[in-house]
Amino acid sequence: MSKYRVGILGATGTVGQRFCQLLEDHPQFEITALAASDRSVGKPYFEACPWKLKTKMPEGVRNIEVAPITPPLDCDIVFSSLPSSVARETEEAFARDGYPVISNSSCYRMEEDVPLLIPEINHEHLALIEIQQQNRGFDRGFIVTNPNCAVMSFAPPLAALDRAFGVRDTVITTLQAVSGAGYPGVSSMDIIDNVLPYIAGEEPKAETEAQKILGEFNGRSIDKADFTVSAHCFRVNVVDGHTASVRVKLDRPATLEDVIEAMKSFPGLGLYSSPEEFIVVSEEPSRPQPRLDRNNGDGMSITVGRILPDNIFDYGFVALSHNTVRGAAGAAVLNAELLVDRKII
Amino acid sequence: MSKYRVGILGATGTVGQRFCQLLEDHPQFEITALAASDRSVGKPYFEACPWKLKTKMPEGVRNIEVAPITPPLDCDIVFSSLPSSVARETEEAFARDGYPVISNSSCYRMEEDVPLLIPEINHEHLALIEIQQQNRGFDRGFIVTNPNCAVMSFAPPLAALDRAFGVRDTVITTLQAVSGAGYPGVSSMDIIDNVLPYIAGEEPKAETEAQKILGEFNGRSIDKADFTVSAHCFRVNVVDGHTASVRVKLDRPATLEDVIEAMKSFPGLGLYSSPEEFIVVSEEPSRPQPRLDRNNGDGMSITVGRILPDNIFDYGFVALSHNTVRGAAGAAVLNAELLVDRKII
Amino acid sequence: MSKYRVGILGATGTVGQRFCQLLEDHPQFEITALAASDRSVGKPYFEACPWKLKTKMPEGVRNIEVAPITPPLDCDIVFSSLPSSVARETEEAFARDGYPVISNSSCYRMEEDVPLLIPEINHEHLALIEIQQQNRGFDRGFIVTNPNCAVMSFAPPLAALDRAFGVRDTVITTLQAVSGAGYPGVSSMDIIDNVLPYIAGEEPKAETEAQKILGEFNGRSIDKADFTVSAHCFRVNVVDGHTASVRVKLDRPATLEDVIEAMKSFPGLGLYSSPEEFIVVSEEPSRPQPRLDRNNGDGMSITVGRILPDNIFDYGFVALSHNTVRGAAGAAVLNAELLVDRKII
Amino acid sequence: MSKYRVGILGATGTVGQRFCQLLEDHPQFEITALAASDRSVGKPYFEACPWKLKTKMPEGVRNIEVAPITPPLDCDIVFSSLPSSVARETEEAFARDGYPVISNSSCYRMEEDVPLLIPEINHEHLALIEIQQQNRGFDRGFIVTNPNCAVMSFAPPLAALDRAFGVRDTVITTLQAVSGAGYPGVSSMDIIDNVLPYIAGEEPKAETEAQKILGEFNGRSIDKADFTVSAHCFRVNVVDGHTASVRVKLDRPATLEDVIEAMKSFPGLGLYSSPEEFIVVSEEPSRPQPRLDRNNGDGMSITVGRILPDNIFDYGFVALSHNTVRGAAGAAVLNAELLVDRKII
Repeated sequence: MSKYRVGILGATGTVGQRFCQLLEDHPQFEITALAASDRSVGKPYFEACPWKLKTKMPEGVRNIEVAPITPPLDCDIVFSSLPSSVARETEEAFARDGYPVISNSSCYRMEEDVPLLIPEINHEHLALIEIQQQNRGFDRGFIVTNPNCAVMSFAPPLAALDRAFGVRDTVITTLQAVSGAGYPGVSSMDIIDNVLPYIAGEEPKAETEAQKILGEFNGRSIDKADFTVSAHCFRVNVVDGHTASVRVKLDRPATLEDVIEAMKSFPGLGLYSSPEEFIVVSEEPSRPQPRLDRNNGDGMSITVGRILPDNIFDYGFVALSHNTVRGAAGAAVLNAELLVDRKII
Repeated sequence: MSKYRVGILGATGTVGQRFCQLLEDHPQFEITALAASDRSVGKPYFEACPWKLKTKMPEGVRNIEVAPITPPLDCDIVFSSLPSSVARETEEAFARDGYPVISNSSCYRMEEDVPLLIPEINHEHLALIEIQQQNRGFDRGFIVTNPNCAVMSFAPPLAALDRAFGVRDTVITTLQAVSGAGYPGVSSMDIIDNVLPYIAGEEPKAETEAQKILGEFNGRSIDKADFTVSAHCFRVNVVDGHTASVRVKLDRPATLEDVIEAMKSFPGLGLYSSPEEFIVVSEEPSRPQPRLDRNNGDGMSITVGRILPDNIFDYGFVALSHNTVRGAAGAAVLNAELLVDRKII
Repeated sequence: MSKYRVGILGATGTVGQRFCQLLEDHPQFEITALAASDRSVGKPYFEACPWKLKTKMPEGVRNIEVAPITPPLDCDIVFSSLPSSVARETEEAFARDGYPVISNSSCYRMEEDVPLLIPEINHEHLALIEIQQQNRGFDRGFIVTNPNCAVMSFAPPLAALDRAFGVRDTVITTLQAVSGAGYPGVSSMDIIDNVLPYIAGEEPKAETEAQKILGEFNGRSIDKADFTVSAHCFRVNVVDGHTASVRVKLDRPATLEDVIEAMKSFPGLGLYSSPEEFIVVSEEPSRPQPRLDRNNGDGMSITVGRILPDNIFDYGFVALSHNTVRGAAGAAVLNAELLVDRKII
Repeated sequence: MSKYRVGILGATGTVGQRFCQLLEDHPQFEITALAASDRSVGKPYFEACPWKLKTKMPEGVRNIEVAPITPPLDCDIVFSSLPSSVARETEEAFARDGYPVISNSSCYRMEEDVPLLIPEINHEHLALIEIQQQNRGFDRGFIVTNPNCAVMSFAPPLAALDRAFGVRDTVITTLQAVSGAGYPGVSSMDIIDNVLPYIAGEEPKAETEAQKILGEFNGRSIDKADFTVSAHCFRVNVVDGHTASVRVKLDRPATLEDVIEAMKSFPGLGLYSSPEEFIVVSEEPSRPQPRLDRNNGDGMSITVGRILPDNIFDYGFVALSHNTVRGAAGAAVLNAELLVDRKII
């Protein structure tokens, strides 16, 4: 069986590198095109890309010549990790040209007719694709998105609680890894012996995306879940792995055992990149920790710990996800696998 | 004018070292005795103490022979930074023996007849001393305490808001420095490229001390302030400086300007170690930061920033204090200065 | 084919944990006994051990009851990562009791009749085992050792150069990871925003072990290689991976190409844990780096880069190895595989 | 007495900020002009500059409007911390226009007629100024320079040894702080849990500048000292403070006591910014450390420790200096004080 031929937009960045890593030896996809900004165009990938991952650059991509980020591109589908500034126009151009665009960028996430997907939670939002194609006059192309990397840490446990007991309000404080800002991103002078109390643009995303993800498709659009999120986002001295301190108010009463069980039993999907456990619940008092837990499920699990009753809300807990795997490239790859599984591509 | 002669219990630890540093050249106090655990007793201080501060060990303490932590000690008053395990008995013994005990330990903080002081906020709680002496049969001796180092970061801005508008509920998430755990304290293997989501014993302190500090003396005891605190405490890769993310619900409406003004105008005290500004309000979007702001007011100011309306609560903000200065040794020194100022010693 | 039954002395420490990790699913060895200090004895391993590795504790060891570190132990061979203070007596007792002891401790490394092995370099030193058994009256038991973790980073490239051109003098400056000190080991207060210029006992090891490793067996003992090492050892803010800056004077002239070729072509061994390339030579200007290169060859390769002519010596280069894998537990496992391969056990 | 009016070229960078900090309340200099690149020109300094120092931006500079980096500038002398790419032309233009240029840039350091100064070591090199003015047709203007920040850590102890015993060869391995690369400089992704074995352009500077600094003025030019330096330069996870591991071969025999005495007794200068001790010798086994020792002498002392006989060379030691104070802005300020003292300005 032949593989889908994949192009990557923004291929030389932190998330672009993860795409290359995650798609090496993938049974359904193979990379045939790498696109990046002008200063990389025309160079072989190994020259254009400041590779920063622990595993080696896959042989299959080393010598691909970097193409410009404009259609046509020699591939069947595109993954995009473009910065927002250029993503809006570029992704639209590819979709209009007939490419399925699986985007990690933020610009289309909150558009009414664009699915914002966590496959385990809301794969039925795929129904928006048809509406999007009609709305925008796309023929075969379309855009699907995955959430912000910080949202990825807390949306899954919230989904588990929302389904089981209903979520009302939730207070989130994140401790985010530097890789979330790309490379070079955060200056070492800002983070050694330090914490940054601000990440530009992050809190609004954290306060709005979860309601769409946990919303319901009503036949034409998504009815957003009606809880409120308050988010404070901090940058800390960690390479990979976003941690979120969460308090949550529930609609219906739940014992601590109920809450733990709701998280543990939240079903995964059997896709190629799905982790064995979608939500890993740790009962050790000092977990999750980014260095020890970010690679759970090969970076695709969410790890939750410190689930405890709260003085003001109903429960508090700490959630962790690998921000450049499950929170970025891995999320997009899983979206692509879902599209294949549902025969949309 | 002669100085009060001071003894330090737990003199070789992280906080004990800060006492020595802060009392060098102090106009009211001079160190005449240093006491520590058995393995240090009999050695000159410079030999017994693994000095970890950037400034040099003060000449005046280098050759003091370390004494055991039992009365009598060659001094008029004692500062204690003993670990809780030994503080209870030892501090009581010193108080019974006639010494004013100015303690940074946690064991007496929540006792009904022991003042838990932040001089700018609740100096009238000093009235408990007389009651304490009656209750416990202390003659001239007594115990006063200062708050937990994490509480020290958020109690002052809460006090400012409580006085002006009344505080109802507050949600706190702390990002605490490693020096809070003493030396050797946190293992480097636990904190490089990592965050710890748990600090033993910290959340209960953070959830109970502020109500006593902001409470009112009713003639016999303290009526605790009746708001509720939810606290999550994290350890992060920072040497000094505890950061707290705070959301707060108020009793009475307040504009953003009101809130900022309430913090800025909260009065300080004119004691020797008082900072020029008790609460420094920063309006830069990415402050406070531990490395840049912990030394504000020589480590005795609280720095607050990111004061913003909140989706669920009324306001959110970020507060920072130097955990081993204002949050420990400096707090105790200020308490001692208050006692002198009020002629209690 | 049945597996050798392995016992681990010092099983709860940093290196002991690595043994458990590396022996999970090993085709030749299975762990049947775990021994540690008194405070762990009698507990199941999962309770006694503060597991700090990214991979999960292997199922097979979780419930093994920790035994005391005295023979007999329910196993055929023992791996030891005991601290030097107890290793001398304990390892001798096990050897005398008939166990092959494969030790990562330093105490026997420089004894005349004990092999100090890097299998790729000096497997012929195994001939010392017979002499050792005669000398010490051991029956079937014996002790073999692997080098200090810092030595492991620079001895392999030195061996490559020594064989090809002869090594005269070498100057080494190491930048060592905190895991080399075990857990809790280095205090976070000593290493955040800091470098430590001293590691107790390390420089003498770095200055003496390489000459034995590169020495020749003369039928009775090892004739040490006759070059001189000057070593300065620093601790830096890195979890895993020791880096060494090396300058070396050669006996015979060699071009830069010769030097690179000598390293690249140094043969590996085909043992189960052998890396594909023993010495990986990187030609990128800013490599090796601990975070990116320590896991080369699953942590069993040595990575060398920045090979350049030197102003004073003949050549300089930078070498890196994973200190708890190739520099400790992995080294011992490879020694065990060598013993099996040579039919000594 | 009126102060010299000072302009700063490159005022918004890491070193430019240090100039502002060090010149606050300086008795001889006051800042009257701040110049930076186009994107800052016309803004008040507080807006143009991402201030990263722990002390507050001095009031006196906050509202100075940033000027372009071209003469004329409203000042008597200029300090320059321009990047090399623009320094060559710009500094020459200022010198030609009559300004004394006190430069921290590297481009003129090795020019025959430009003094490369460490005032305590080679103030007699000031005689080059006259020659420079003749050579280049400068009227009253001229350029003086200070060394590379890494050189600043090891040149002073080498000077002490060279004067006393003669230095032959020296091997240097540096562990350099991230602030040496300016802001944003080193990416956090490159330095968390990592070491970089390469700093572009650094090793050649470290291998050539010391010989000029320790050279002798022969009436027309500098006869360079005739020892050879081999330098390896690493970047480590430290904010401020460059550490150097040094081995040195001497021309004449010296006991360990001689060596220590030569360093301790090396005379300082009585200038305003001179530290009390130029070279601080620490005899503690684990010093110097950047976090604890970089501020010795307010950042203007060099701290040396671990002075020990070496196996290959005569002696080894570890030297540390504050790279943005003594290694950059402080060095230039001291040069300016020297020029005033010698009545050259």
